[in-house]
Amino acid sequence: MAQRESVPSMTESVGSGDGSGDVIGRLQEELRVFARARDWEQYHTPRNLAALIASEAGELLALFRWDQEALADRPEDVRHELADVFLGVLRFADATGVDLEEAATEKLRLNAQRYPLGIAGGPDR
Amino acid sequence: MAQRESVPSMTESVGSGDGSGDVIGRLQEELRVFARARDWEQYHTPRNLAALIASEAGELLALFRWDQEALADRPEDVRHELADVFLGVLRFADATGVDLEEAATEKLRLNAQRYPLGIAGGPDR
Amino acid sequence: MAQRESVPSMTESVGSGDGSGDVIGRLQEELRVFARARDWEQYHTPRNLAALIASEAGELLALFRWDQEALADRPEDVRHELADVFLGVLRFADATGVDLEEAATEKLRLNAQRYPLGIAGGPDR
Amino acid sequence: MAQRESVPSMTESVGSGDGSGDVIGRLQEELRVFARARDWEQYHTPRNLAALIASEAGELLALFRWDQEALADRPEDVRHELADVFLGVLRFADATGVDLEEAATEKLRLNAQRYPLGIAGGPDR
Repeated sequence: MAQRESVPSMTESVGSGDGSGDVIGRLQEELRVFARARDWEQYHTPRNLAALIASEAGELLALFRWDQEALADRPEDVRHELADVFLGVLRFADATGVDLEEAATEKLRLNAQRYPLGIAGGPDR
Repeated sequence: MAQRESVPSMTESVGSGDGSGDVIGRLQEELRVFARARDWEQYHTPRNLAALIASEAGELLALFRWDQEALADRPEDVRHELADVFLGVLRFADATGVDLEEAATEKLRLNAQRYPLGIAGGPDR
Repeated sequence: MAQRESVPSMTESVGSGDGSGDVIGRLQEELRVFARARDWEQYHTPRNLAALIASEAGELLALFRWDQEALADRPEDVRHELADVFLGVLRFADATGVDLEEAATEKLRLNAQRYPLGIAGGPDR
Repeated sequence: MAQRESVPSMTESVGSGDGSGDVIGRLQEELRVFARARDWEQYHTPRNLAALIASEAGELLALFRWDQEALADRPEDVRHELADVFLGVLRFADATGVDLEEAATEKLRLNAQRYPLGIAGGPDR
């Protein structure tokens, strides 16, 4: 995962996976290379990245402000804003050493305990 | 990805992957099974999920409200709130048919065009 | 921009106070007139307005994403985004019958109990 | 709840207005006294306060996550979260020297230009 000498181009590195699947790890590496090449790692503190995620999530939500229709009207904007939140989450996890798969699996287990099957009630409030 | 007869338990389905890697797809299936088993799919409209993501992102940010220290002080809370945002993003993508890997790769390309190497300037404002 | 007959004009109503001070009430009336004249009151449900406030807050935060400098660089943007959040709060309170002065005063009292003077500790996390 | 000696009590200062109306100024003074008495002014940078507002807005939104009913079910929580956002806005404006009344009035004028009467179309997206 080390990066050496010349900075690989974003485009090249995009295709560098073997297709077998560690999408999260590959995207995180891209983000790392991207940040390092621009000397932006200094800005990627946990707090800055939490603020980034929250502001990107605010932009995604803004597309749905008054109605349900943003997806039909502006699918590209929705895709891009969603991707921004997703990339923010990947970068945060990478910068802080959180294993996203583990953390998500653990949270799913906690949710299953919190909302057991067969118990009446709506979703998490 | 098909779901069969009896709803698989969360715990069982967690281990059902072959380990080769489609983490995103596996987690999305878990979320789908979880929602379906509780009859919550009706709530998972794009707009509701955008609001969920924004409120989870607000909770993550709240951990970093005044300083940089949340990670050291409360690593479990950070992991869980990050996982909540991540799971919200996965569910949104699944419910709306967005391919997260494609969307993220496309966004990385756009970012590389927007912030070319060797040009002075801070990160995205 | 002119509004005729029964609907008071925005501009006129701006100046209609007696200067003695109910700024909140005057702005809320402006917002109400504005929404009614465009038949937008139907959209101003508590949930929609909560989503509006969160997305406006996300936009304000986006100005401060990486550093402290937005205020010096883009004071007009900061003013406008702050005003958007403020107006969202005023509209929410008006639409739901919350007395903002009372609610804020009550919250200040609760905060004073929660963070008594002379006790060590940082601000609310 | 009373605080004595040199620090003015929150309760006393609440009642110190002449009742004629500068609610915003009075609440801002309370917040300033509160922060100063706890030596918290150092934390109240524009960026920290923007993050506070966004996280409080996320908490308000969380109450409305899946449905419209939070107001009926949990009116106290809604009041308190709304008050938290409101107080954050007041503190931000005070710490940065933004005149909220002016900024809001200006934004209302811009909105009236942007959404003239008699033009078809939904609310701001």
